[in-house]
Amino acid sequence: MPTNTRFDALCIGNAICDVFSHVEEDFLRAEELAKGSMRLIDTDEAVRLFGKMGQTVRISGGSAGNTAAGIASLGGAPAFFGKVAEDELGDSYAHDMRGTGVHYETARLKNDLPTARSMILITPDGERTMNTYLGACIKFGPEDVDPDVVAAAAVTYMEGYLWDPEEAKKAFLKSADIAHSHGHRVAITLSDSFCVDRYRSEFIGLLKDGVVDLMFANEHELKALYQTADLDTAISAARESGALTALTLGENGAMAISREETVQVAAEKVDNVVDLTGAGDLFASGVLFGLARNYDLKSAAELGCLCASNVISHVGARPERPLKQAAEQGGFEI
Amino acid sequence: MPTNTRFDALCIGNAICDVFSHVEEDFLRAEELAKGSMRLIDTDEAVRLFGKMGQTVRISGGSAGNTAAGIASLGGAPAFFGKVAEDELGDSYAHDMRGTGVHYETARLKNDLPTARSMILITPDGERTMNTYLGACIKFGPEDVDPDVVAAAAVTYMEGYLWDPEEAKKAFLKSADIAHSHGHRVAITLSDSFCVDRYRSEFIGLLKDGVVDLMFANEHELKALYQTADLDTAISAARESGALTALTLGENGAMAISREETVQVAAEKVDNVVDLTGAGDLFASGVLFGLARNYDLKSAAELGCLCASNVISHVGARPERPLKQAAEQGGFEI
Repeated sequence: MPTNTRFDALCIGNAICDVFSHVEEDFLRAEELAKGSMRLIDTDEAVRLFGKMGQTVRISGGSAGNTAAGIASLGGAPAFFGKVAEDELGDSYAHDMRGTGVHYETARLKNDLPTARSMILITPDGERTMNTYLGACIKFGPEDVDPDVVAAAAVTYMEGYLWDPEEAKKAFLKSADIAHSHGHRVAITLSDSFCVDRYRSEFIGLLKDGVVDLMFANEHELKALYQTADLDTAISAARESGALTALTLGENGAMAISREETVQVAAEKVDNVVDLTGAGDLFASGVLFGLARNYDLKSAAELGCLCASNVISHVGARPERPLKQAAEQGGFEI
Repeated sequence: MPTNTRFDALCIGNAICDVFSHVEEDFLRAEELAKGSMRLIDTDEAVRLFGKMGQTVRISGGSAGNTAAGIASLGGAPAFFGKVAEDELGDSYAHDMRGTGVHYETARLKNDLPTARSMILITPDGERTMNTYLGACIKFGPEDVDPDVVAAAAVTYMEGYLWDPEEAKKAFLKSADIAHSHGHRVAITLSDSFCVDRYRSEFIGLLKDGVVDLMFANEHELKALYQTADLDTAISAARESGALTALTLGENGAMAISREETVQVAAEKVDNVVDLTGAGDLFASGVLFGLARNYDLKSAAELGCLCASNVISHVGARPERPLKQAAEQGGFEI
């Protein structure tokens, strides 16, 4: 860890409880849901859809929260900002964060909206279709940014999804400003291609203006950002974006792209893909941990692929067993 | 299904939310917990232990509840009696029951104890050690027994665990009485060997007096019941108990034992045992479904083994994908 930081990474995002249910393909058709998408839903729709779901599994989630939990599981020291309510789901969320070793002190929301939940429908191919009720997350704002924590983190990593709740965007920009003023890096994940469609010009502006130094994206998101169907065109645009791009390519592994260099790494082989939820989030855990510990770019990307392969072999976007063990077995010195 | 019943089985038990966490062997040693046991804990201990657990996965559970969910997953028509509170865990529990197709109408507990939860610690060998806070379950009693539902079920299946909360035992005996008065069968699961130690003489009395016709047990429980270290001795005692015994033998499959016949079936092969929670519960699902649908004893036991093998390949004691599909692929006509 760099000597002037307490945290390998500060992750900031919507604090969401994931409610998983396995469904058949025709469930998505009947509900007219685009497979692999994340849509925002209101209370009425949340109640209606929940009523149609069968057996559920409930696991703390949220993209940046998953990334923080992954860094902790690697043996790192992450922090997290995100808002839950004073309710049972919020209790579980806070427990899971602290229980895995994440520094998490964001003030809970009282007598107001409930903790956010995302109803995630898993189809037999392992794909997940997310229906998110933001609840307490829309009350997360710049007042929740603790400058001391930002100052103490080697990198501040934030979700594109923070553009959805109005005040969260201000928290993003405030955090980026503090991080840079202390000479630390700022990272964004593009979150999903639908999110990119909603905020394309703003995200491109963040890269161009140097608000973010490091961008995490998958193939669909990068193509959406640059409005092209051709991956090479998107990669060329990313190379000129001003930021370092960490690009996940599913079973084809990952790339890291900057003006100076391009590295490509293979995916880990996974025998039994159960649930793709969290693959990108855990890739980010490995990369952020690696960069904070001064790994070279290729090794950091390889650690990201190892973390991603681990999480897709079970339901949920959080590691079940310590990633530190898996990483050490994979030849990494943690 | 027999023409005079609406339900393949009525399952009665403690309605519990399972809170899973993966731990290393030394966690059990530090906490002085006997691996594979279920112990009852109070509120203070529940809070203390929860504070020591890392990342959790939350899934509706409870032994008889799991069995009911398994029957529904096979395409059967189960009912369930068990008490949860008017809280978020209770909402999830009721949702999961009804969402999978279980008839579940037990009155919720209001302004009183919270919904029960069992903190289940999974060690790397897939074994689970359970720490159960009974909460609202101790308010389940004979007034919660709907006679019309008992009368409409081919078999009434109840947990030995019902002997733990005082009033639940009365509900057990009332239900057995109603079932027999309608010519239906009554079944018990011995639940666990510690439970057998607590209530041995009463359980033996239930068999001798004909209160139960069918007993589910694993090897440890049957040996505990007859206070012998020798399985053959225990089996001989079971043969003379007056009841039909359905005995699970882990990776050695299962047996069905009565005065008239003994059948033995092999276990299904499981490549990756993740979590043994629910193996016995789901074995019961298969057997009860099979008997209600007039399978012969051997076929019913084989269906039980198939259901058990399905549930141990993932975390949680409820089927993730429909058991009906797995059973049909296994050659059963559902």
